[in-house]
Amino acid sequence: MVPVISDLKWFDVADPASPELDELAHRFGLHELQVEDCRHRPQRPKTEEHDHYLFAVLKHMHDAGDLEFDDIDLFLGPDFLISVHHADSPAFDSVRARAQQEHIERLDKVFYIIVDQIVDAYQPVLDKLADEISDIEDAVLDRPNPETLAQIYSLKRKLVEFRRVAGGMREVVNDLIRREKGLLGDDLDVYFRDIYDHIIRTVELIETYRDLLSGALDIYLSAFANRTNEVMKLLTIWGTVALPLVIITGFFGMNLALPWENSVHGTVFAVVLMAISTIAVLIYFRMKRWF
Amino acid sequence: MVPVISDLKWFDVADPASPELDELAHRFGLHELQVEDCRHRPQRPKTEEHDHYLFAVLKHMHDAGDLEFDDIDLFLGPDFLISVHHADSPAFDSVRARAQQEHIERLDKVFYIIVDQIVDAYQPVLDKLADEISDIEDAVLDRPNPETLAQIYSLKRKLVEFRRVAGGMREVVNDLIRREKGLLGDDLDVYFRDIYDHIIRTVELIETYRDLLSGALDIYLSAFANRTNEVMKLLTIWGTVALPLVIITGFFGMNLALPWENSVHGTVFAVVLMAISTIAVLIYFRMKRWF
Amino acid sequence: MVPVISDLKWFDVADPASPELDELAHRFGLHELQVEDCRHRPQRPKTEEHDHYLFAVLKHMHDAGDLEFDDIDLFLGPDFLISVHHADSPAFDSVRARAQQEHIERLDKVFYIIVDQIVDAYQPVLDKLADEISDIEDAVLDRPNPETLAQIYSLKRKLVEFRRVAGGMREVVNDLIRREKGLLGDDLDVYFRDIYDHIIRTVELIETYRDLLSGALDIYLSAFANRTNEVMKLLTIWGTVALPLVIITGFFGMNLALPWENSVHGTVFAVVLMAISTIAVLIYFRMKRWF
Amino acid sequence: MVPVISDLKWFDVADPASPELDELAHRFGLHELQVEDCRHRPQRPKTEEHDHYLFAVLKHMHDAGDLEFDDIDLFLGPDFLISVHHADSPAFDSVRARAQQEHIERLDKVFYIIVDQIVDAYQPVLDKLADEISDIEDAVLDRPNPETLAQIYSLKRKLVEFRRVAGGMREVVNDLIRREKGLLGDDLDVYFRDIYDHIIRTVELIETYRDLLSGALDIYLSAFANRTNEVMKLLTIWGTVALPLVIITGFFGMNLALPWENSVHGTVFAVVLMAISTIAVLIYFRMKRWF
Amino acid sequence: MVPVISDLKWFDVADPASPELDELAHRFGLHELQVEDCRHRPQRPKTEEHDHYLFAVLKHMHDAGDLEFDDIDLFLGPDFLISVHHADSPAFDSVRARAQQEHIERLDKVFYIIVDQIVDAYQPVLDKLADEISDIEDAVLDRPNPETLAQIYSLKRKLVEFRRVAGGMREVVNDLIRREKGLLGDDLDVYFRDIYDHIIRTVELIETYRDLLSGALDIYLSAFANRTNEVMKLLTIWGTVALPLVIITGFFGMNLALPWENSVHGTVFAVVLMAISTIAVLIYFRMKRWF
Repeated sequence: MVPVISDLKWFDVADPASPELDELAHRFGLHELQVEDCRHRPQRPKTEEHDHYLFAVLKHMHDAGDLEFDDIDLFLGPDFLISVHHADSPAFDSVRARAQQEHIERLDKVFYIIVDQIVDAYQPVLDKLADEISDIEDAVLDRPNPETLAQIYSLKRKLVEFRRVAGGMREVVNDLIRREKGLLGDDLDVYFRDIYDHIIRTVELIETYRDLLSGALDIYLSAFANRTNEVMKLLTIWGTVALPLVIITGFFGMNLALPWENSVHGTVFAVVLMAISTIAVLIYFRMKRWF
Repeated sequence: MVPVISDLKWFDVADPASPELDELAHRFGLHELQVEDCRHRPQRPKTEEHDHYLFAVLKHMHDAGDLEFDDIDLFLGPDFLISVHHADSPAFDSVRARAQQEHIERLDKVFYIIVDQIVDAYQPVLDKLADEISDIEDAVLDRPNPETLAQIYSLKRKLVEFRRVAGGMREVVNDLIRREKGLLGDDLDVYFRDIYDHIIRTVELIETYRDLLSGALDIYLSAFANRTNEVMKLLTIWGTVALPLVIITGFFGMNLALPWENSVHGTVFAVVLMAISTIAVLIYFRMKRWF
Repeated sequence: MVPVISDLKWFDVADPASPELDELAHRFGLHELQVEDCRHRPQRPKTEEHDHYLFAVLKHMHDAGDLEFDDIDLFLGPDFLISVHHADSPAFDSVRARAQQEHIERLDKVFYIIVDQIVDAYQPVLDKLADEISDIEDAVLDRPNPETLAQIYSLKRKLVEFRRVAGGMREVVNDLIRREKGLLGDDLDVYFRDIYDHIIRTVELIETYRDLLSGALDIYLSAFANRTNEVMKLLTIWGTVALPLVIITGFFGMNLALPWENSVHGTVFAVVLMAISTIAVLIYFRMKRWF
Repeated sequence: MVPVISDLKWFDVADPASPELDELAHRFGLHELQVEDCRHRPQRPKTEEHDHYLFAVLKHMHDAGDLEFDDIDLFLGPDFLISVHHADSPAFDSVRARAQQEHIERLDKVFYIIVDQIVDAYQPVLDKLADEISDIEDAVLDRPNPETLAQIYSLKRKLVEFRRVAGGMREVVNDLIRREKGLLGDDLDVYFRDIYDHIIRTVELIETYRDLLSGALDIYLSAFANRTNEVMKLLTIWGTVALPLVIITGFFGMNLALPWENSVHGTVFAVVLMAISTIAVLIYFRMKRWF
Repeated sequence: MVPVISDLKWFDVADPASPELDELAHRFGLHELQVEDCRHRPQRPKTEEHDHYLFAVLKHMHDAGDLEFDDIDLFLGPDFLISVHHADSPAFDSVRARAQQEHIERLDKVFYIIVDQIVDAYQPVLDKLADEISDIEDAVLDRPNPETLAQIYSLKRKLVEFRRVAGGMREVVNDLIRREKGLLGDDLDVYFRDIYDHIIRTVELIETYRDLLSGALDIYLSAFANRTNEVMKLLTIWGTVALPLVIITGFFGMNLALPWENSVHGTVFAVVLMAISTIAVLIYFRMKRWF
């Protein structure tokens, strides 16, 4: 296998299943369990130190729509860097481009750039999530319906996963800062601290988003309670207006000796009674501020 | 008692109550309280160091359907390994098979294989749980009913137990990694770290499942609020349509001097009035977007 | 005062208010504040080291029905053990019996036996609680009523208290294990660790019980939402069936020129109309799967 | 300024704004920020060590009804004790009385007595709270109404504040125990530990009270769900009883050729029909155990 | 660039994008990433030590109405202080005024004044929030409506943000106290501890406000449950009063042989029956204390 950039022993394996990985593992003495980790995906984000190299599992955003993540595995030795990922990962092209453009000549700086690119790629997703949540909040106040609920729920699921990944990445970056081994130059500490700030901010934003979604759920539920209340009021007002009229018409429909029977005076009396009853009920509910 | 594998002093006691255990305890100087722990099940997962051996209580998945666990007790000394479990544990057959197949010749490696097999056996259960939860989520959105609720509840109970067991196992494995004693070879550290990753992932998945179940419960409850709301709407629309008609028919049923009494004109007037009333109510609710 | 068991300077004070305690305090140089602690009950579970002795406040289950606890105070010196408790504590009789039966000749072993008996006495209570919760769960699914709610609530209260006591006892036992002082023989460590396992398990079970009760409460509340929904449905179906009939009978009751007036054809027509209306409504609700 | 007790340099400033405090600050070299702390109330409970003295802000219960707290500031030097508080604080009179009565001759003991009195004064408030919560629990089960809710809510508010103060005081007392400086005699450690136990118990009780109030809130809410359910049932039963009767009377009121028209047989038939209908409906609901 | 105050090398950059910042960065050897932090806002509050200077990101309250914050970046070296902020920040004018007024001649004291002013500016916002929450609580008890809910929700959002900022600032100030480096004089420790107390109190108040808002939400929701209950009661009472009257009038409207047909006795009987029915129903509900 030939290195990605000449003069730099950086090997990029775009297919974890390929025998190239075995070859590299043999050449640089990689541990079998870690090679297995590259192949059995997904793994949790982690860093592991071996005798002479550093092994890291990172999570890059694979599908921003569904918040799906994919593993990127890195082996950093004193004179080699091996990156393992799936072929169709656009994240890696930009890493390579940046490495060449900035004329990086140190392997630990390439390592830093990869971590930096991965964490940077979270940002647009966070912005998109903020928009989605903002839409949900509007929907919940204006026109709550079961679809909104399903949306809240689905977003919550994704955030649970994102939170876990970001938390794991935070540990990984923290680990890289604290590590005393000479594989990562001390001058990179401030750069990794910069990444650490980004990832902390990511975790905080995810937590905020979860709070906002919980709030949206509360509003959704109370909106329904409110609507049921409105429906009940309407039924009650209407029933209360109608029932006296039904009783009055029923009264004058009785086959008994009624006052003003078959007389226009009776009709006028009945109609006036019905009008008074209706107006009285409406005034009553008006005073109760029901409408 | 004869060892499981010749040349290896691994003793497997398939019945904790058998006198074989007492015999081994006497021969290798096992502490009486730990022998009692083997017999009084269930114990919490734990590791204990004694003068010259290591005692571990592990939890293997006994019944994947009901998420029931059973204890496996291990005593690892410099020159002996004693495993205690119930006879009908299929997990042990696979351990023995793997130990023989890989030509394991070190007792601490057998110890590792047992722990590894136990933790590996959690994976299919996690997959099954994911399926069950996915089914519940569908049921909750499509046709929520009290049975779904009972199902959510029962699954939650099981997860509480599983979470406790997995948390205990995490402590045990963490303990095995940190332990400085020479009973477990240092080269096994990376293997135990691998198990540790698995168990951490298990714990995380269980937490995620609990979140999902809580979400499903929220949806279930709000689905009911929604349905009550729908029922109320139907009753209200219907009542509001019907009551004017009842009043109109009642009005013309009064035994008073009515306009167009006993005339076809009256009938036509009444019918038209009823039609207008009905259409007006329906337009009103249409404008309110109730249907 | 004479020791409980000859040859062993174990003094048992069955009434904290008795002057015997003062006499012992004077003789063995007990601190006045700790003597006060014996008298002002309840105290929190704790261990305190003094110059030459160990003071422990333990909580034994006094009333298993109401989950009430009582203090047992222990002073363990190099050559004396003083236990202080209320006279009517059956727990102490069994301690004395066991101490005599096992021919205990060391004061720290008596100390261990007392702690062990106290923690062991939690187990039957936990079993009883499991039964009660199981009953509540059945009740909540089958016939939820406000009494069940009061029961859940009362059990929750008791568990809060039990959780606090068990948590305190866990700290006490943990303290006894970690303590470096020579009052408790090192060979007792494994025994205290055994008690520690029991008390941890107790705490875990209480936590589980609380989770189960919360779940039962959720089911209770959703059962009511469900029942209200059922009631509403019944009212709505019934109202929707009845109102067309009321309108039809009202229509033919109008004192207007009606088709088939006073004719049997009209009656047949009306009856058929009513039957069709009823059947249509029932089919409609059947299709909506309301019954 | 003259000391409170002759022979003891204890200065009590009953008005934080008075120039006496400035005079003392100058005389004993108190830090300006701490003098400001005495004047800008409220401060959080805290202890601060300065070059040669100890500064403590304590919280004493000022108004037991509203759970309002006031600051008491203490400066303890090797040869002076300055206490700063509001004039109308009855707590201080009892401190002075107790100090004189016990013939205290050490400044650190006076310091201890002040802290002890402050923490002791929490106890009657806790007892009163227990009574209030007990009343609320009864009210919530017997006659839930919005006033109860407001009461629960107001108590919750007070407990939040009390919890914060008690938590701060716990830190302060813990600090006083751990402090190695010679200002507080080592023989006082056991006394401060006694206070610590009290304050821990206070915090635990507040937590329990909050749990109880949350439980009461749950019961309150479910009581309303229950009542709405009862109301709905009544309406449904009554509607279901009445509607058949309305239909029957409507049927025989139609101006069509009816069987037994204008005959007593018809009346009897109608009445019997109505009776059967009513009884059938009542039996139906009886079987459903609705009443 | 000229210093803000003559004799003091304090440089104030009012526009992070200006080349002045680059010039200063070059002159004092500031790290590029930290200069970037000044330009890419918002950053999280933090302190970072570099070889020879201290870098701090602080959060000052930019818009008290919307609880919006803006970054203030500080670089403190042994002989320079650089502050970076947006031009329209009134907070800075008061810092400069205070620094000149108090004749500050040390850079670390200017640093302290800036932090102090920033944290002090939180206080009026906290007071305003307390007022808003108090208004919401009143609204929720008197006239709950969806607008109140939206208000609660919006305030909750703001508090989440404020909590995060205040928590970050607490870490920063804590860091400044613990720091051993000689850049901040030891005599400032007590001043920073004073700020620390303020910020802790701020965090506690925000937590309290969140609790209060949660309580207000509970009351809001239960107020709706209560209102629905009231509406249902009214409907039920009214329906129960009206239905007997409808049945009675219907009964006497039947075209069957009725007692007292077409007689005044019948009318009197019917009216009396209707009155008794109404009174009976009202007494029944009165006894149930429904009104």
